[in-house]
Amino acid sequence: MKTSSKESAANVTGVTGEELRNVISDALMAHGASSGSAAVQAENLLEAELRGHASHGIRRLTVLIQRMRAGLIESDAEPELDWVAPSVLRVDGKRGFGPVVAYRAIDEAVARANETGIAMAAISNSSHIGMLAPYVESIARRGQIAVLLTTSEALVHAWGGRGATVGTNPIGIAVPTTGEPLVLDMSTASVSMGKILDYAATGRALPIGWAVDSLGDPTRVAAEAVGGAISPFGGPKGYALGIALEAMVGTITATAFGTDVVGTLDSTLPATKGDLLICISLERLGLTGMLPLLTAYLEEVRGTGVNGVVDIPGDRARRARDRNVADGIQVNDKVWSLALKYKEEASNND
Amino acid sequence: MKTSSKESAANVTGVTGEELRNVISDALMAHGASSGSAAVQAENLLEAELRGHASHGIRRLTVLIQRMRAGLIESDAEPELDWVAPSVLRVDGKRGFGPVVAYRAIDEAVARANETGIAMAAISNSSHIGMLAPYVESIARRGQIAVLLTTSEALVHAWGGRGATVGTNPIGIAVPTTGEPLVLDMSTASVSMGKILDYAATGRALPIGWAVDSLGDPTRVAAEAVGGAISPFGGPKGYALGIALEAMVGTITATAFGTDVVGTLDSTLPATKGDLLICISLERLGLTGMLPLLTAYLEEVRGTGVNGVVDIPGDRARRARDRNVADGIQVNDKVWSLALKYKEEASNND
Repeated sequence: MKTSSKESAANVTGVTGEELRNVISDALMAHGASSGSAAVQAENLLEAELRGHASHGIRRLTVLIQRMRAGLIESDAEPELDWVAPSVLRVDGKRGFGPVVAYRAIDEAVARANETGIAMAAISNSSHIGMLAPYVESIARRGQIAVLLTTSEALVHAWGGRGATVGTNPIGIAVPTTGEPLVLDMSTASVSMGKILDYAATGRALPIGWAVDSLGDPTRVAAEAVGGAISPFGGPKGYALGIALEAMVGTITATAFGTDVVGTLDSTLPATKGDLLICISLERLGLTGMLPLLTAYLEEVRGTGVNGVVDIPGDRARRARDRNVADGIQVNDKVWSLALKYKEEASNND
Repeated sequence: MKTSSKESAANVTGVTGEELRNVISDALMAHGASSGSAAVQAENLLEAELRGHASHGIRRLTVLIQRMRAGLIESDAEPELDWVAPSVLRVDGKRGFGPVVAYRAIDEAVARANETGIAMAAISNSSHIGMLAPYVESIARRGQIAVLLTTSEALVHAWGGRGATVGTNPIGIAVPTTGEPLVLDMSTASVSMGKILDYAATGRALPIGWAVDSLGDPTRVAAEAVGGAISPFGGPKGYALGIALEAMVGTITATAFGTDVVGTLDSTLPATKGDLLICISLERLGLTGMLPLLTAYLEEVRGTGVNGVVDIPGDRARRARDRNVADGIQVNDKVWSLALKYKEEASNND
């Protein structure tokens, strides 16, 4: 670990991926997680950091630990997996870590898709799954197309509406190629609440289109947005997509809708969001011959850039990851100190 | 049929749904379609008109008939359906009408989803399927959640790119409720090429964000946009979603990508787009108990309107449909005359 002089103004600490993984893992173990569960959860936060999405990185540790302390996460719970139909797996996460439950479901769904062509897993009662990209990418690397959807706390307003009634409902899609997979991971909100809170903390004006105030009027004042709602990305279409996904995922996972979705940002309520995974086996369907064509197409699109290369979904995160693996990760000092404190609690418990 | 005086400036003719259906159906039969196939294709164009999407309505008749004349549509071809895996149906449309092939696939996929929970149909070699809403809505009315994706001619640029390399790749999703289903049907382009051509014809300036010129620079000149590309909806996210769907649908349907997708707008090339359908049986999965909760949620969102009621996806099209069923449909005079001419060709063939 070394304190970065270059970025000292931002109060960040430079750490390696291994340091970050170990600190998170130790902190989780200090609060009762087994080494296996802690490693899977730590890897998920690390991957978010490596891919340049600190909002889903180590700073989520506090909520995880608070939820563990409150009994809202049972880190070593055994998820209940039930094939309720030949191609549909129902997963009761039993309050386990989101990534631990999700990877159990992935293993089952990938194996089943290799038999039935397509398989779906509907997950409930599981903790926050974090960034979607690592999951769908892992499935693409096993030769399958993956779609992963999850509901989330209502932070987004309906188009023409006031109040936060729709989740940020992200979409993860990965498609294998002959090289690196295409990996989409995007929220259906125009911006994250984390970014709005950053703007509120520094008093900067929001760009128009990011948020509305409590009356549903567009606002550039971040503090008003916090009491209002984030706007969907892409106006009415983004809203329509977000609420369609909320309806679909909430129904299939038999979980909650809208403001009844809780338990990923707070530390007081059981998680009521749902995760929906669909795997499609290209090998089982005799489609691996399509991958060179797809690869050529994506390469052609990359070459159409007006200034430099156009990105295919996943390219930017891959560059960030390569850079951060090589140069280390910049972590906010306070966040890092807190993580060390959580880890320290391990020794106290010994 | 009556010429509307109120809208005479726009040179439109008011027709009933039945008149419109019959004219289309007769015109298709005049060019060799059986009454059964013609009725299904006519219904698809009629539904687009009723729902207020004239771009997918009777004006598509010309291309359909030109393609029939050229042997690119074989209206009464028997599609080849093959369950290549327990939950995956491969459909070779044999150049049949898009709606005829799609409804055959839907019947099979819905029945299979009632056994396996989820079923997917991958359709190739089929004509344009038109507006997606009627298909997914019909599945929702049978108690299933439906997702329908289709690729289309490259009309959209990559984000930061020049040239049209991505389809308008629309998304259809329907979710049953205890009342009317939620029905999403949206393209991933910011606007249709039809609308840009309208602007070009009338010399109006395009809103910024709709399109780029041939160099990839944003343009407000519609004629430049025609030689350039339409922008994705919602900026980089809409682009990422559109190309992810193109990769997924093209791969699973073993069809074409990007500029190799042809045959829905032209009258000279076999159709190389693909249609992908996923059906999920709520009854099979024991999820019908979720529908009252979903219905209550959607009703709550409708009530959050700043000015009047907020729309759930499908609400606006449903209002348009009710209005047009009651008051008749306004069809462009030239389009209507042409349809009558196509129909007239029937009598000549008798």
